[in-house]
Amino acid sequence: MISLLRVVAVSTVALALAAGIDQRIAEAQAPTGSAGPIDPALIEDLVVANRVLAQEGLFDAYGHVSVRHPANPNRYLLSRSLAPALVTAGDILEYDLDSNPVDPKGERSVLERFIHGEVYKARPDVTAVIHSHSPTVVPFSVTGVPLRPVMHNATFLWVGVPVWEIREAGGPGTDMLVRNGALGKSLAAALGDKPVALMRGHGNVVVGPDIPTAVRYAYYTEVNARLQAMAIALGGPITYISPEEGAARDKSPGDFARAWELWRKNALGK
Amino acid sequence: MISLLRVVAVSTVALALAAGIDQRIAEAQAPTGSAGPIDPALIEDLVVANRVLAQEGLFDAYGHVSVRHPANPNRYLLSRSLAPALVTAGDILEYDLDSNPVDPKGERSVLERFIHGEVYKARPDVTAVIHSHSPTVVPFSVTGVPLRPVMHNATFLWVGVPVWEIREAGGPGTDMLVRNGALGKSLAAALGDKPVALMRGHGNVVVGPDIPTAVRYAYYTEVNARLQAMAIALGGPITYISPEEGAARDKSPGDFARAWELWRKNALGK
Amino acid sequence: MISLLRVVAVSTVALALAAGIDQRIAEAQAPTGSAGPIDPALIEDLVVANRVLAQEGLFDAYGHVSVRHPANPNRYLLSRSLAPALVTAGDILEYDLDSNPVDPKGERSVLERFIHGEVYKARPDVTAVIHSHSPTVVPFSVTGVPLRPVMHNATFLWVGVPVWEIREAGGPGTDMLVRNGALGKSLAAALGDKPVALMRGHGNVVVGPDIPTAVRYAYYTEVNARLQAMAIALGGPITYISPEEGAARDKSPGDFARAWELWRKNALGK
Amino acid sequence: MISLLRVVAVSTVALALAAGIDQRIAEAQAPTGSAGPIDPALIEDLVVANRVLAQEGLFDAYGHVSVRHPANPNRYLLSRSLAPALVTAGDILEYDLDSNPVDPKGERSVLERFIHGEVYKARPDVTAVIHSHSPTVVPFSVTGVPLRPVMHNATFLWVGVPVWEIREAGGPGTDMLVRNGALGKSLAAALGDKPVALMRGHGNVVVGPDIPTAVRYAYYTEVNARLQAMAIALGGPITYISPEEGAARDKSPGDFARAWELWRKNALGK
Repeated sequence: MISLLRVVAVSTVALALAAGIDQRIAEAQAPTGSAGPIDPALIEDLVVANRVLAQEGLFDAYGHVSVRHPANPNRYLLSRSLAPALVTAGDILEYDLDSNPVDPKGERSVLERFIHGEVYKARPDVTAVIHSHSPTVVPFSVTGVPLRPVMHNATFLWVGVPVWEIREAGGPGTDMLVRNGALGKSLAAALGDKPVALMRGHGNVVVGPDIPTAVRYAYYTEVNARLQAMAIALGGPITYISPEEGAARDKSPGDFARAWELWRKNALGK
Repeated sequence: MISLLRVVAVSTVALALAAGIDQRIAEAQAPTGSAGPIDPALIEDLVVANRVLAQEGLFDAYGHVSVRHPANPNRYLLSRSLAPALVTAGDILEYDLDSNPVDPKGERSVLERFIHGEVYKARPDVTAVIHSHSPTVVPFSVTGVPLRPVMHNATFLWVGVPVWEIREAGGPGTDMLVRNGALGKSLAAALGDKPVALMRGHGNVVVGPDIPTAVRYAYYTEVNARLQAMAIALGGPITYISPEEGAARDKSPGDFARAWELWRKNALGK
Repeated sequence: MISLLRVVAVSTVALALAAGIDQRIAEAQAPTGSAGPIDPALIEDLVVANRVLAQEGLFDAYGHVSVRHPANPNRYLLSRSLAPALVTAGDILEYDLDSNPVDPKGERSVLERFIHGEVYKARPDVTAVIHSHSPTVVPFSVTGVPLRPVMHNATFLWVGVPVWEIREAGGPGTDMLVRNGALGKSLAAALGDKPVALMRGHGNVVVGPDIPTAVRYAYYTEVNARLQAMAIALGGPITYISPEEGAARDKSPGDFARAWELWRKNALGK
Repeated sequence: MISLLRVVAVSTVALALAAGIDQRIAEAQAPTGSAGPIDPALIEDLVVANRVLAQEGLFDAYGHVSVRHPANPNRYLLSRSLAPALVTAGDILEYDLDSNPVDPKGERSVLERFIHGEVYKARPDVTAVIHSHSPTVVPFSVTGVPLRPVMHNATFLWVGVPVWEIREAGGPGTDMLVRNGALGKSLAAALGDKPVALMRGHGNVVVGPDIPTAVRYAYYTEVNARLQAMAIALGGPITYISPEEGAARDKSPGDFARAWELWRKNALGK
């Protein structure tokens, strides 16, 4: 029995956005060779993202983070199937937007890579995608309690956090995994134009215009979930971040480089 | 006063399974010599299991994990009484299914080893057994709230998690420990054909077809207990993993090697 | 919609105190040169404060701590914009009380430094100021539940913990940050003569007569918030620290050097 | 206003025991020289106890643990005022039972050492005393919810956990600290013949027949408090450890050396 609260209302805005995606992306097809070499600094950022999300407890042995190929929007970069804490530059593979590896190098691909490919198709504004089992968002995904921002570093949640119900696309008997493009497309539609969507009984997908922003969004989504859960336990009405505050913060330049500098140091020791 | 909710309904399926165990197991008797040398890789896996369950907080100074002898199903391997974080290959002893050490080597045996012996007798499908005081399962064991899967990595709990009440077998005045075969047999009967059973006011027993699977089950049982407790605290109805989803996941090959690779590295530094 | 409980009642005592501040502070103006060299031991204490508040989980990549210049009460010392865990002596800059850097050295200043300058203006008794996102105080800041002392090491909270609502001073559309002197002044007025004020949906400001005391106040404010939240979850009436007990402890010499000695060692390895 | 539930019912048994203490203890007076050298192994155990209680989170910069002098029951050994994580053998001082240092060596004594002296006077069966701010017991100390055993490793709590209200002995205006013998005596009377008493808004006192047992009691009191709090949060009636089970476990030899071996290794690296 699925609660009505679990049914995600995909906004027409999001659908329109998904329909109007960049023409280059729509033309994605089977890979016919690499889109070219990548700046080692970008690969290093991807390695940092893997490790820091493990260090901060958003990843255990699972979870993955990708970046769109800077030379070709129809490609993305993602580690082979490997615990994120162990990822190094040599583990990164290139995929097309149907999530076929350009050169699998004999390695096993992440089962749920379709999350990444389908989000990149639907969201030309997105350059980085994270899928995590961020622990404190899972309880929000299985109850009717909406995740809402209570803290200024999570104001980006003010636009709402949809909950994707895999049964809507996959029927009642899935194994809960995003194993193909159809499921990934459904998840991307639920995400719409938002930065974060929860996946019922599973985790979340978090997107951003670059790797550091996506990592920051994922980290503060988890922090906010903890704070909101504590506030609920205290009892009484909660003053959430208002739409005006959220919108103002969206436009405000912040000290965001501080966090990435710390995380790089923690992840790489430099 | 024992709540009716604490009384474990041992399924007839489980009892039938226990009755129909492998004939070789039923013939177990006092040990008359080792069942033979063990592959060092299997012993290393057992050492990894001890250490990783300590690192992940499921073991403190207590808790134990065993593996059935690969050459003789009437034998199992278990560390001498030692804090799991300190276990090395040299600490592993061999036991028969009545939990007599084949060669005690002058060492103290784990008091509650009967958990292992009796489960191996009752469950020919089981190759690894864990007993832990996994912290977040204890609260579920003393309340009427059933532990149920809320997260896709704990779908294996969909078959139900029995709670074993030691008073059913041992009367009102036990010291809470599984000190003999009769108590171990009662616990194994409560476990039935399930992967996990809780022990009231004590912890749990977790079984699997191999060491990595049993460790994964134990780890995600703890994770799920935390998530379910948080979901309950949020209030409102909870969408649990459905039987269809659980059954589908049981049959789905997963990226499970990822977790073991990480845990080995964390436990052994390699 | 702002709950009445969120509206901070600024005490007339505090306003009078703010009006009667030290004449030297009132004469603060644009900086015209450093107030002079600082004892390296004081700078080291400031570095310790940054690092220990990170180690104890009150700071993540954000949060800051300052000290009033010992030679000139119209100046204060604060790290450039940098994650607190990374701060070293070379990162400390000097500011006037309007929070202009005396010599920015080409570095980015902390956006919310106005918290520090305005508190130093309003509180001549204060020598150290901390701004943190101390995790467990945020839930208290967004609910109507007042933070009150439950533990003897947090008795300093007996005077009450105001909650500052940024909308009172900045209107409904701020980005939640204390970006200018007017907002800082409003926060300082809400703080009044207290050691701690919460900032709605943000964190807190904590002040003290010296760095170790301010750090101790910040640390035990977080500890007390956790204990109070747990006590509330247990249910039933709570026996808070009474005004008599709080006042008695305010006057009692304590073993407070013990904590600083440990924190120095943890922060500096010496 | 003190809840009736906070008023500790000092059992007549405990008072009788306190009255009938060992005659040698009753004759305690001002120290006139050391009771003699101590086995370095006992001092090392005391150092281990200090460090492990810090590592396990029961001590922060505060908390202390003592042992009765093996050669003279009228003396006890306790570190000078120092964060427990930093204690070494050279920091241990000798005290008489009025808590006067035999030779202060120019060091500051722990303010609340009277807890130790008065408990040793009242309890000839006790050889080790711990005072901690064990985090999860404080919420139980300020609510009417009694701490009761839910887990088999905390069965020793079955005899009940009194809560000492300092106002009963010290009046409404204490600074919450056990600063003299009269307060210590009142606390010891509240403890009675139990292993653990809570101190309202403060922490607990835990006693045992030797150092490892007292540390084990302190550790599992904290663990049990966490589990009981979680069980209460789950809702519904709780099955506590019964008196029969508690009494049976009191008499049962356990694998207790395992824990001390691990803790020694964690504390000393050997």
